[in-house]
Amino acid sequence: MRMRKKSWAEPFLAEHEEVVIASPASMKGNWKERLNKENLHLEIGCGKGDYFTHMAAMYPESGWVGVEKNINVAAIAAKKLVDSNNANQLLIALDAEKIDEWFAHGEVDVIHLNFSDPWPKAGYKKRRLSHRRFIEVYENLLSEKGQIIMKTDNRKLFEFSLLEFAQCNFILSDVSVDFRAEEHPEDVMTEYETKFVELNQPIYRAVWTKLTK
Amino acid sequence: MRMRKKSWAEPFLAEHEEVVIASPASMKGNWKERLNKENLHLEIGCGKGDYFTHMAAMYPESGWVGVEKNINVAAIAAKKLVDSNNANQLLIALDAEKIDEWFAHGEVDVIHLNFSDPWPKAGYKKRRLSHRRFIEVYENLLSEKGQIIMKTDNRKLFEFSLLEFAQCNFILSDVSVDFRAEEHPEDVMTEYETKFVELNQPIYRAVWTKLTK
Repeated sequence: MRMRKKSWAEPFLAEHEEVVIASPASMKGNWKERLNKENLHLEIGCGKGDYFTHMAAMYPESGWVGVEKNINVAAIAAKKLVDSNNANQLLIALDAEKIDEWFAHGEVDVIHLNFSDPWPKAGYKKRRLSHRRFIEVYENLLSEKGQIIMKTDNRKLFEFSLLEFAQCNFILSDVSVDFRAEEHPEDVMTEYETKFVELNQPIYRAVWTKLTK
Repeated sequence: MRMRKKSWAEPFLAEHEEVVIASPASMKGNWKERLNKENLHLEIGCGKGDYFTHMAAMYPESGWVGVEKNINVAAIAAKKLVDSNNANQLLIALDAEKIDEWFAHGEVDVIHLNFSDPWPKAGYKKRRLSHRRFIEVYENLLSEKGQIIMKTDNRKLFEFSLLEFAQCNFILSDVSVDFRAEEHPEDVMTEYETKFVELNQPIYRAVWTKLTK
């Protein structure tokens, strides 16, 4: 998503340290304490924050952290966090490449990957958030029986992800090749997702559970 | 598929023992020798035989065996085998429930499951050809690095199969949630499959490879 640079974005993010964590590495091991929750959901590539802010409202018993590297997009998400005033959500407006420096081993319970950039060219496949170099990082961050939940409209990314996880220390524990063919009131449908559903395009979804060694 | 009983079916199957194997257990361990081929493909639920007879013609270096329990349908397949006169194909007109009595350990290289009966009701899921009780039998029949290739138009069966194989001693080695979105000249498209493609319905395909212990 390309967006003109918003002059208010950076100052807004900096001004709202109550919800935007500028130095996530300093929070390592302390996220649940800070959020005062016993389990932690993390959305990597949260965009404008529609998904995780709605999920945070629906599941107030959990802590929710969103990561978005695009400053302009993250600022919109930050505004939602400020406006909604839910105590169980935080935002990181940085590139997830260093995510292993931000969370301790086993600190995260569920990782959400929603409509991630498919990086369709083979030369960029290492950038896909379901490339095994990321999966290995997720494995380290996740708690015992921790899960990764992916939703995407991109079939190539979905197929790649199924094959990639099959090679890693995770087991496929749920899968749908047309997730919205049935009602799923337990899962928030964002505006972006709604567009695909209205076009009769399938939403693919998979859940992988970390294997205990 | 329901079909009126064909009076010619049983006699025809009995008369053509050059292609219809009435006592497959007596062939156990000797299929490759009989077919004079070094590798063996097995289609379980071959219906009228369109897929495996075309594949047998396309891949004459392999032996091809089809299994179909419906006598009337199997008789149509048998007629194709007789007419085509390819030396590399055989038919078994029996229920695959006893398949472990017909093939020796490691005797089969590839098992094909094409548009298998989805048995949609949960109470009948044990009858699905990708239920783990079958997968365990396949594992025993397959050679080292042997494969199971499934194609289906039924998303529930496909999802069930992905989850079921994930629990077994196989690894997902290829997957497509819209197999005919690209050209696949290496794989025969039957009349049945063509119907779904013409209706713009996706064909799901997965390949699982037996894990070496």
